[in-house]
Amino acid sequence: MTYCVGLKIDRGIVFASDTRTNAGLDNVACFRKMHIWDEVTDRTFVLLTSGNLAVTQAAVTLLSEQLHDPEETGPTLGTVRTMFQAARLVGAALRKIRAINEEVMGQAADGFTASFILGGQIKGDRMRLFQIYPEGNFIEATEDTPFFQIGEHKYGKPILDRVAKLSMRMGDAAKLLLLSFDSTMRSNLSVGMPIDFAIYRKDTFHMGEMERIEAEDPYFRALSEAWSQALRAAFEDIKSKPLVEQG
Amino acid sequence: MTYCVGLKIDRGIVFASDTRTNAGLDNVACFRKMHIWDEVTDRTFVLLTSGNLAVTQAAVTLLSEQLHDPEETGPTLGTVRTMFQAARLVGAALRKIRAINEEVMGQAADGFTASFILGGQIKGDRMRLFQIYPEGNFIEATEDTPFFQIGEHKYGKPILDRVAKLSMRMGDAAKLLLLSFDSTMRSNLSVGMPIDFAIYRKDTFHMGEMERIEAEDPYFRALSEAWSQALRAAFEDIKSKPLVEQG
Repeated sequence: MTYCVGLKIDRGIVFASDTRTNAGLDNVACFRKMHIWDEVTDRTFVLLTSGNLAVTQAAVTLLSEQLHDPEETGPTLGTVRTMFQAARLVGAALRKIRAINEEVMGQAADGFTASFILGGQIKGDRMRLFQIYPEGNFIEATEDTPFFQIGEHKYGKPILDRVAKLSMRMGDAAKLLLLSFDSTMRSNLSVGMPIDFAIYRKDTFHMGEMERIEAEDPYFRALSEAWSQALRAAFEDIKSKPLVEQG
Repeated sequence: MTYCVGLKIDRGIVFASDTRTNAGLDNVACFRKMHIWDEVTDRTFVLLTSGNLAVTQAAVTLLSEQLHDPEETGPTLGTVRTMFQAARLVGAALRKIRAINEEVMGQAADGFTASFILGGQIKGDRMRLFQIYPEGNFIEATEDTPFFQIGEHKYGKPILDRVAKLSMRMGDAAKLLLLSFDSTMRSNLSVGMPIDFAIYRKDTFHMGEMERIEAEDPYFRALSEAWSQALRAAFEDIKSKPLVEQG
């Protein structure tokens, strides 16, 4: 499985993705699910990927090759003028890869699918965050729902639902994403460390912190331990349900 | 959707189930998913049900009719001597209903499936808790994993994973199950109030508290509010992720 999350706050966008890929529980590997395009000066894109690795890698490669191909005449991540157009481009790349698979495999291609989270900013446009569905269509994060999750999203959603706020500080948004990961990894072994973590700050047009957080990372370990303790303490603090016969 | 959970601690077993049933989001109704057999003096059973309502209702009715049929010669919930045998009986009832459906509907019966949590005690046997799969086979709760969840289980699992302990007091176990429900209902609209809630105390052979907790229940509202505040406070208390550039 996979867990990826992107949270757009007023100050920027925080991204995190796990790195565990498996084809059955006895075939587990570590692959990057966060892809960053930051080489063109007036724009920065971060793409988080979930789904079949052959599909996601092919889509990412297609987007990168378009970007670097001097003969490419169609729109590329280097030439689109808005984030909306970038999202359409990513959706089109996904559809293209899926169409190729279907041509070769027919119905057997049904499982070869993928979802994306795309965030970033192009000069002249707002900073934006999209979730792109397997069909290539997409939705945009809003004030009401400032985050997107793909993959194994349920375990880590309650904390996001309760705490995510547009006015958060960057360091708190980073903490929130890591807590959401901590909850997910405790309940589902197929989401695993290390975590790729990245920050984009509004109107900077280049990436901020990019970090691979390993299992032994001191901040993550302290966070995980502190959160466990805090949850247990919070649980203790709440009044027990009154019962007829206590004990 | 459905959310049901059973937690077996040293002192007894706590059960909770939601009551929302839907056939599409515009067809939402309230049905009991907790079934209690407590009329035979030396035994008590609680069955939580998830899945197709026609299947779960038929299986429950079959078990009840067997129990009350004076001509019944096979094993019933009234005559089995161990909880293991009771779990087999429930599994067999489920298989029987599914076989009838398959006879009538053929492949179309594939989606007509159900899962159960069965807990209780028979005099001469330990108090036990089982999860019964759609195929009619089952597993038993152990010291390592003292709870079972069926239905929409992911949102409410992290808190159970962290807090559930065999040595808990009953009122705390009750609080824990309600918190698990609170997390689930905040993240998934298809799990809804009221909650059916019941307690079985070890070696009593009759039910303890049985309660339908409505949305306006003062304890539940206070619990939900206190937990939100406690989580936010716990979040604030944890050090933010140190970033190169804070803000």
